[in-house]
Amino acid sequence: MERLKEAILQRGSVRGQDIVKVDSFLNHQLDIELMDAMAQEFAVRFAKDGVTKILTCEASGIAIAAAVARIFQVPAVFAKKTPSRNLDPDCYSADVYSYTRQQIYQIRVSRSYLGPDDRILVVDDFLANGLALLGMKSLVNQAGAYLVGCGIVIEKGFQPGGEKVRSTGTRVESLAVIAGIENGQIVFA
Amino acid sequence: MERLKEAILQRGSVRGQDIVKVDSFLNHQLDIELMDAMAQEFAVRFAKDGVTKILTCEASGIAIAAAVARIFQVPAVFAKKTPSRNLDPDCYSADVYSYTRQQIYQIRVSRSYLGPDDRILVVDDFLANGLALLGMKSLVNQAGAYLVGCGIVIEKGFQPGGEKVRSTGTRVESLAVIAGIENGQIVFA
Repeated sequence: MERLKEAILQRGSVRGQDIVKVDSFLNHQLDIELMDAMAQEFAVRFAKDGVTKILTCEASGIAIAAAVARIFQVPAVFAKKTPSRNLDPDCYSADVYSYTRQQIYQIRVSRSYLGPDDRILVVDDFLANGLALLGMKSLVNQAGAYLVGCGIVIEKGFQPGGEKVRSTGTRVESLAVIAGIENGQIVFA
Repeated sequence: MERLKEAILQRGSVRGQDIVKVDSFLNHQLDIELMDAMAQEFAVRFAKDGVTKILTCEASGIAIAAAVARIFQVPAVFAKKTPSRNLDPDCYSADVYSYTRQQIYQIRVSRSYLGPDDRILVVDDFLANGLALLGMKSLVNQAGAYLVGCGIVIEKGFQPGGEKVRSTGTRVESLAVIAGIENGQIVFA
């Protein structure tokens, strides 16, 4: 998606060999107009898939998931990451290792909000090592729901997540795929 | 806001003397249409305040903040709660005690996204003890920005937060105020 690639180049920045910072529009400050344009693109790509619900993980997936859910006119559900005394104890859960935070955390969704009649589109801001996506795929499987596919804003094509998730037979649509970072410059696939 | 109160009564539930669960539409599963209606109501209440930016805290404030930002056509910023190696080290920060999680956490916003020219509307899903709001007020003050006010989806009027925040001279607009829970039933103010 050209507009997203332009935003990454013009408003993003690179740190080291593998970190792409898009805090200015995607995961700290939110550019709502761009978010809606991206959601529209996901809606086109998954238009014929009978999506009944959008699933993401807190926190930075929530804004894009809600924008996609608005277009499909379906609910969005965000998996919780931190223990809370308010969460329904009756949930689906999966362990996910975060390279960014360098720790294992548990993602959980109440059984009330995913079920066997659901056709789930998983949406997330980044795909790098793929572990969050595989965790969400596990939640969908536990619910007996059907995983339509994954809509990703930025895929780091130089990390193994994309291949790992696609090798399970899961459809992954990424709006921008970064092939690598060369001399501090982002190169798209 | 009548439609919200109906949703709380019909789709929410009560646990014990003080917990109102609205997981089904506000902070786990998201009802986007209701979210947009609430955002519209905030937009009406703060229409004349020259809002330049919406501020909230991850995670459950993000969806409503983004919906409000869409109407004002301004960016939304969400304060981060957990340490991340990707966050700009140059940030405003405040300590917040969470009664829900029973721990102190730090909320942080990069200095790039709040500044002295900003007129900030803080938006959050719940107001109970007010500590998250006071933390966000502190971030706004640190940035030298102007705090237009706070837009709250559900205020627990029987807890001290509303009075605490209003006593600082801050305008607080809540779409539903719960006066108390009597015999397991929610009573609105």
